[in-house]
Amino acid sequence: MSKGRLEAFSDGVIAIIITIMVLELRPPEAGTLVALVPLLPKFLSYILSFVFIGIYWNNHHHLLQTARSVNGAILWANMHLLFWMSIIPFTTSWMGEHFDSTPVAIYGAVLWMAGLAYYILTQALISHHGPNSTLGNAIGNGRKELWTLTIITAAIPLAFVSPWISAALFVLISVIWFIPDRRIEDKVMNQKRD
Amino acid sequence: MSKGRLEAFSDGVIAIIITIMVLELRPPEAGTLVALVPLLPKFLSYILSFVFIGIYWNNHHHLLQTARSVNGAILWANMHLLFWMSIIPFTTSWMGEHFDSTPVAIYGAVLWMAGLAYYILTQALISHHGPNSTLGNAIGNGRKELWTLTIITAAIPLAFVSPWISAALFVLISVIWFIPDRRIEDKVMNQKRD
Amino acid sequence: MSKGRLEAFSDGVIAIIITIMVLELRPPEAGTLVALVPLLPKFLSYILSFVFIGIYWNNHHHLLQTARSVNGAILWANMHLLFWMSIIPFTTSWMGEHFDSTPVAIYGAVLWMAGLAYYILTQALISHHGPNSTLGNAIGNGRKELWTLTIITAAIPLAFVSPWISAALFVLISVIWFIPDRRIEDKVMNQKRD
Amino acid sequence: MSKGRLEAFSDGVIAIIITIMVLELRPPEAGTLVALVPLLPKFLSYILSFVFIGIYWNNHHHLLQTARSVNGAILWANMHLLFWMSIIPFTTSWMGEHFDSTPVAIYGAVLWMAGLAYYILTQALISHHGPNSTLGNAIGNGRKELWTLTIITAAIPLAFVSPWISAALFVLISVIWFIPDRRIEDKVMNQKRD
Repeated sequence: MSKGRLEAFSDGVIAIIITIMVLELRPPEAGTLVALVPLLPKFLSYILSFVFIGIYWNNHHHLLQTARSVNGAILWANMHLLFWMSIIPFTTSWMGEHFDSTPVAIYGAVLWMAGLAYYILTQALISHHGPNSTLGNAIGNGRKELWTLTIITAAIPLAFVSPWISAALFVLISVIWFIPDRRIEDKVMNQKRD
Repeated sequence: MSKGRLEAFSDGVIAIIITIMVLELRPPEAGTLVALVPLLPKFLSYILSFVFIGIYWNNHHHLLQTARSVNGAILWANMHLLFWMSIIPFTTSWMGEHFDSTPVAIYGAVLWMAGLAYYILTQALISHHGPNSTLGNAIGNGRKELWTLTIITAAIPLAFVSPWISAALFVLISVIWFIPDRRIEDKVMNQKRD
Repeated sequence: MSKGRLEAFSDGVIAIIITIMVLELRPPEAGTLVALVPLLPKFLSYILSFVFIGIYWNNHHHLLQTARSVNGAILWANMHLLFWMSIIPFTTSWMGEHFDSTPVAIYGAVLWMAGLAYYILTQALISHHGPNSTLGNAIGNGRKELWTLTIITAAIPLAFVSPWISAALFVLISVIWFIPDRRIEDKVMNQKRD
Repeated sequence: MSKGRLEAFSDGVIAIIITIMVLELRPPEAGTLVALVPLLPKFLSYILSFVFIGIYWNNHHHLLQTARSVNGAILWANMHLLFWMSIIPFTTSWMGEHFDSTPVAIYGAVLWMAGLAYYILTQALISHHGPNSTLGNAIGNGRKELWTLTIITAAIPLAFVSPWISAALFVLISVIWFIPDRRIEDKVMNQKRD
């Protein structure tokens, strides 16, 4: 089964998710700078989620590039990832309106599920291509994915100490993932060189 | 007529349908866990529809993969399917807000129409490719499609006995269709092998 | 300049236009069949516009299929068509809420502009490919396009006699265009046969 | 890394941005022409942004056409451009509701950031392909991009003199960019001819 439509459908869903979040940024009632101030937490929330979804798209792009074909399990693992990503606009909007412990913890919990779904997707791809394939070698032990899950696991209860600690950890994760996955890029390069 | 743009357009419409449903999940007024509770039926409704649309996309993907070309009748049969799918966010939202007999029955009726539209699309594809084509052999007698229509036909009046019976039947259908259409997958494999 | 991205972008915009109209179908306040009744004009309005946008997509698909390449004028003629199509959700929603002379006339006026924009696009394509190209021969004198504009030109003032006359004319146009453009399909077939 | 998915994802995001702006055009409460009058500033605002986003898409299309491949820096430069473009529906809606100094200046500021992001994207592409590549030669010194930034830089403070001056400058920029980038088109032609 070719991977073209899987990529096209994922691109469509991710493009919509990243864009509809902006619909939550309602223009203020007045035409003054002061009227923009209450929007600031929503705007910061939007930036954070935009970066996270951008990271997911970039890594999804890298991951699928090494795939030769897909099967039914991969289709559903991908759909599962898209499901959790589709909840991000909801949690972004809630956290932007109520920067409190619960909304921040729930924001983290949805990120956690998306991270897990991404991990499952990589495993489904590895099991389809074999552990000794380019993809299998490139992903390796999934250390980065597991580190991310560990940090978010900490961020969720810490939101009840202070939502700012969790927010700082979310920013940290976005920095870790900002750089596209060099492991895969390098392996692809090497493979082409051989 | 090539099938590329039909797939691209369908991917676009299905990606939007599956994603805009989340716009109905309005963030609660308060930043507490208790405030999330009234959203639960909406959320379960969203999951059910996400799975159904995911199933349609998966099967649409498999179905079109065996098509060699499309004609005007197929374009319109596909548009008809997309029409009924586009109503799903409306019925999902209504059922999520009012888990009563009528909204659940209407939810079933729209699924019924989408199922019928899918069946018409398979027939349009078979009539274009010939009953002895790969596609014609793979689809066969459309038993799974007819079973689905039968179950939904029962679920609609049963919603007036109890909406929970209908909901259970919807879940049953989603399980039946969860596994991508092995019949087509197998036939494509066999064809390649020959 | 290749036509691939023009098709992809148009598919994206048309897919969104056809789908966001459903966001106007707000679920009723109560969970009863009676509560659906006031939605009926909105729903009929939605069906009409869904069919019109479906027709545009089908014909756009056929038109671009004969194009070998595009230029700057074609890009803008296409953007102009998308602009008027993007207004259709607005006029659909207005007509659905107020089935009066003015909203129906404005609905017709936007269809008129979209029809004109489609005609300009065909002319831009003919001028780029030459009047003796497959496309030039297939489009011919654009009689169907001019007929459509003539009927809508009549429908706009007639909305002030009765909105039902205009509505009937809109349905008439949708029937005229329902069948994909056989002229182009035939020419492409002939060309391939030669 | 191939550029196909970058183009597809950008097409998706831009298609959504250009289309969701129309959701701000709420149908008036009454079915009369007079009821449309208060919508006029919103509608003009929509046209202006539609043209700007159309220009960006056209130029993005031209720019990527000369690219042979992309790297991580280009992916993020592109995501950065999409971020600022995604804010345009918000500023469009605000300016349409409040045609005052602050909203118009903020509208200009977001255009400024999008212009800067486009400039960064061209530089990332040049640095990846080399200054003597087709792309490097075609873009040259980025004079048009810098002119645009200069005019918007003037338009932002001038909004506090009169928002109409800024609006006139926005229209001027749209005219400057309306014609797709002949420089790149010519270079590609020459390259093919050689």
